[in-house]
Amino acid sequence: MKSKKVTFADIAEYTHFSKTTISRYFNNPDSLTLENQQKIAEALTALNYKENKVARILANGKSEFVGIIIPNLYMHYYSEMLNQILSTYETYGYKFLVFAGNENKDVERKYIEELLAYNIEGLIVLSPTIPSKELAAYNIPVVGIEREDQYICSVTTDNYMGGVQATSLLQKSNCDILIHINANISKDTPAYGRIQGFLTTCQEYHLPHELILAELGNTFEENHSSLSQILETLEAKYPAKKKGMFMSNDTHANVLLNLLVRKYGKLPDAWQIIGFDNSPISSEAVIPTSTVGQQIPLIAWETMELLSAQMAERKKRKPTPLAEPIHKIVAPVLIRRETTR
Amino acid sequence: MKSKKVTFADIAEYTHFSKTTISRYFNNPDSLTLENQQKIAEALTALNYKENKVARILANGKSEFVGIIIPNLYMHYYSEMLNQILSTYETYGYKFLVFAGNENKDVERKYIEELLAYNIEGLIVLSPTIPSKELAAYNIPVVGIEREDQYICSVTTDNYMGGVQATSLLQKSNCDILIHINANISKDTPAYGRIQGFLTTCQEYHLPHELILAELGNTFEENHSSLSQILETLEAKYPAKKKGMFMSNDTHANVLLNLLVRKYGKLPDAWQIIGFDNSPISSEAVIPTSTVGQQIPLIAWETMELLSAQMAERKKRKPTPLAEPIHKIVAPVLIRRETTR
Repeated sequence: MKSKKVTFADIAEYTHFSKTTISRYFNNPDSLTLENQQKIAEALTALNYKENKVARILANGKSEFVGIIIPNLYMHYYSEMLNQILSTYETYGYKFLVFAGNENKDVERKYIEELLAYNIEGLIVLSPTIPSKELAAYNIPVVGIEREDQYICSVTTDNYMGGVQATSLLQKSNCDILIHINANISKDTPAYGRIQGFLTTCQEYHLPHELILAELGNTFEENHSSLSQILETLEAKYPAKKKGMFMSNDTHANVLLNLLVRKYGKLPDAWQIIGFDNSPISSEAVIPTSTVGQQIPLIAWETMELLSAQMAERKKRKPTPLAEPIHKIVAPVLIRRETTR
Repeated sequence: MKSKKVTFADIAEYTHFSKTTISRYFNNPDSLTLENQQKIAEALTALNYKENKVARILANGKSEFVGIIIPNLYMHYYSEMLNQILSTYETYGYKFLVFAGNENKDVERKYIEELLAYNIEGLIVLSPTIPSKELAAYNIPVVGIEREDQYICSVTTDNYMGGVQATSLLQKSNCDILIHINANISKDTPAYGRIQGFLTTCQEYHLPHELILAELGNTFEENHSSLSQILETLEAKYPAKKKGMFMSNDTHANVLLNLLVRKYGKLPDAWQIIGFDNSPISSEAVIPTSTVGQQIPLIAWETMELLSAQMAERKKRKPTPLAEPIHKIVAPVLIRRETTR
């Protein structure tokens, strides 16, 4: 059974204030004296008043909603980022409307339109596929994580530093040849920094190296088959050399590791492996795998800091828009485990 | 720059209808003739009208919001379930407000209160910790996934059948002793069916067996240390026997598999392993691992079917409440890989 809803009229009658005063309490409490605020607050408790937030959004425009567009939750990086963003509720109080955009421009656009119809105060986009210029044109606070960010605020891992860290660790392991395998990614995506970090470090220290740019496929089976071929090629090309493998993510590092362990019963000394991300698979692998860790809790936190500052600015009588988008860079953390020695 | 908002008055002026007619178009379109609906629809396009859904919720009470309370997104089972539920948007049109409840009763209660303040039409709770009787008392459509469900609608995997499937597969692999390792879970949780399925099958076919009920810990390191000890105990207790291990989930199956592969360079014939869930780790493991697969897309789908039927009923002039909660059971799927032969 629902109890009858308590209305502004009920509260006015109980407190002997006018309905206008009650309305002001909800939409602009500081326009009342502290004493009167206190009286109304006590009346709400006495009447067992349940707030109707929808009415409140309509009255003052503050929905406390933040929209999130995420490519998928299959990949640990995205699900963990969402986990961390949701946990900021305790600090910021924003509620999250979540859509999985499936890396499709038109789907993302449709979802953003839906979110705008619900008066979201801000938008977080993970690895958006629509250009940052288009995102900026929606004219609401937006923070992007990863990918191209020229026109919007963003938070990104320092991928270049990650590439340097991984390459330096392989160098210390006395490898004869350093090999980085990555997809043929565009130079304006943040992840391209990993390739630059690898190449710069190899060139600086005159380290023999090879960069393999190849599509390894989108499924586990495709990764397995592509890396199996690459493994054969490398064993034929560098039979007597100690090979230092810098893989672009922990999933690929794990597939390569499993191929080697199944072939040799262990990870041979001639192979050193480091991944990227610090996904659960890197510690759950048959041999715990060295990796460059992305600080996901910190990225989530910086994202909400940037977004909430913009959302707070919008609530001022005369908001000052940002002169330039702010780009925050979060340092990666090198994690040494048992696949580098 | 925001363009000026198009109001009902603007639409009324453009179409020469009254504002009441325009309002009826949005809240009860079938009360207008098709011809008039068409005229108003054309006017909306001409005026570039952007719907304010918040106003619409207030007018007709239909928020199109469904609340989701999920324990966390660390575990693949939860993140994949959320992924699948979010993807039902294309079919049902409901938007999802998501909270991570952290398996804490008070946190769950607080989040449900928040969700109710936003006029959610229904609620999905994954592995709720608050009793189903309390969830039912909120008096909104609720569907629970896993855990105790006496007073609410629910969707659950047939855990008993899963236990039978796993045990039968180990039996066919000619194991000398069948061993099931699980936590000491309560008999009213659905997952207890796995233990019952194991025991019933062993008793029916007079199979030598051992049930190990033990807390293996909440982190990867704790799992590793507990299972390492169990492995030693079992090798001492059954040195010459072929051991068929039914693990309660794929994470534990993977830890056991890794311990064996690191010790012997391969999975010895004396050990057979099957997990539960069909998590990604079961196919990404060093030796792809047999498992009892939960049909997560089907569970998500059945959940939305149950919930949307209840939500639709609430919109009728005279809703008929459910006489009894509906409990849907989804069959598990046995997946044979390389750890059972």
